[in-house]
Amino acid sequence: MTETITRLGVVIFPGFALLDVAGPLQFFNQLSVIEPFKLSIIARTMDSVSTVPPKHTMPESKFCRIGETWLPTHTFNNAPELDILLVPGGLGTRDEIIFNEVTSFTKKRYPTLKYLLSVCTGSLMVAAAGILNGRKATSNKYAWSLATNNKDVDWVPKARWVVDGNIWSSSGVAAGMDMTYAFIATVFSSDIAKQLANMMEYEPHTNPEWDPFFEIWNPSSK
Amino acid sequence: MTETITRLGVVIFPGFALLDVAGPLQFFNQLSVIEPFKLSIIARTMDSVSTVPPKHTMPESKFCRIGETWLPTHTFNNAPELDILLVPGGLGTRDEIIFNEVTSFTKKRYPTLKYLLSVCTGSLMVAAAGILNGRKATSNKYAWSLATNNKDVDWVPKARWVVDGNIWSSSGVAAGMDMTYAFIATVFSSDIAKQLANMMEYEPHTNPEWDPFFEIWNPSSK
Repeated sequence: MTETITRLGVVIFPGFALLDVAGPLQFFNQLSVIEPFKLSIIARTMDSVSTVPPKHTMPESKFCRIGETWLPTHTFNNAPELDILLVPGGLGTRDEIIFNEVTSFTKKRYPTLKYLLSVCTGSLMVAAAGILNGRKATSNKYAWSLATNNKDVDWVPKARWVVDGNIWSSSGVAAGMDMTYAFIATVFSSDIAKQLANMMEYEPHTNPEWDPFFEIWNPSSK
Repeated sequence: MTETITRLGVVIFPGFALLDVAGPLQFFNQLSVIEPFKLSIIARTMDSVSTVPPKHTMPESKFCRIGETWLPTHTFNNAPELDILLVPGGLGTRDEIIFNEVTSFTKKRYPTLKYLLSVCTGSLMVAAAGILNGRKATSNKYAWSLATNNKDVDWVPKARWVVDGNIWSSSGVAAGMDMTYAFIATVFSSDIAKQLANMMEYEPHTNPEWDPFFEIWNPSSK
């Protein structure tokens, strides 16, 4: 992938988890100085998209959740061909329309991707697309029961991230950064990954089995 | 701060480092379910703002750097009163106009803030505002010489973050997450900070003196 432009697509939707997207993209933003990249931020329409979840997807709170607003570059209908697709999670995935649209886009695009990456509950939509059937994957540990509702996938409970073929899935939110570090080390070079992490002053967890959060959130499943 | 709304402002500008802003905001987004917050994203104008740095601020590269586009909610002129102001860094700080505008806004607002937070090279602008004179602070280690150009500040070279009075400054990019964890633990509660980090599946560095990156980037200064 070093001599051609890598076409990276990232799906966003109302209520995406900011760090699910921004953690991996900080790596790719920096990588794009060394390797040629084209980035598409893909949403339902070209309207701006907020990380504030749709009201009905939020756990009860008397306060208004704050959030940030991003602009997409493409829609599900006009996104260009992609080499890598990143599917984030977040409370927005609990909206049925959002869930189904992202699932449908992921299913349609998977056959022409080189790599599919998911962070957090993004893997629920990858699973719903049927492309994880009989394969290993992981997901957010705080919301682990949402993953195991899908019995077609071999869910790995204690994992920072999981690779099965060309599908990479990480655990919740911050785990996306460690998955991205490992992805860049594998697909580009370990020296480049190390250099990017040092520039970010980020110390990655490099063991995919490192995962204190499964015990923290699922003591009954031990 | 638990009974009133905390008014949080975050400055953005062309070429802000995505994770400088998104790391701390992932914490504050989640905190806003537990404590009432109001967020202002503040820029020069209401136009969208990209993380792609202005061309002349970028180290030479034959490739086009990719980036993401955010929408501000306020301008430097109409931003509301704030309790907390977060000033990020990034290559955009190397543009003189951007640098001076953020410095000027920070200087104007500091007297009415409860807390001022900077991430990465954001501290260069806080320093230029004169409010770090004779005080301790830290900054990005990859670009450490930019900080030490300002002789009025007691720069701390080996620090993940530094607190002096009501001014918190972190080292580069990812260090902003650890500073934010410590800030929330101090100003709100350590239990809440721990809960947010567990939900983010983030293991914070809780020792402000933990800093392998100073040695990595400044071997001659050891």
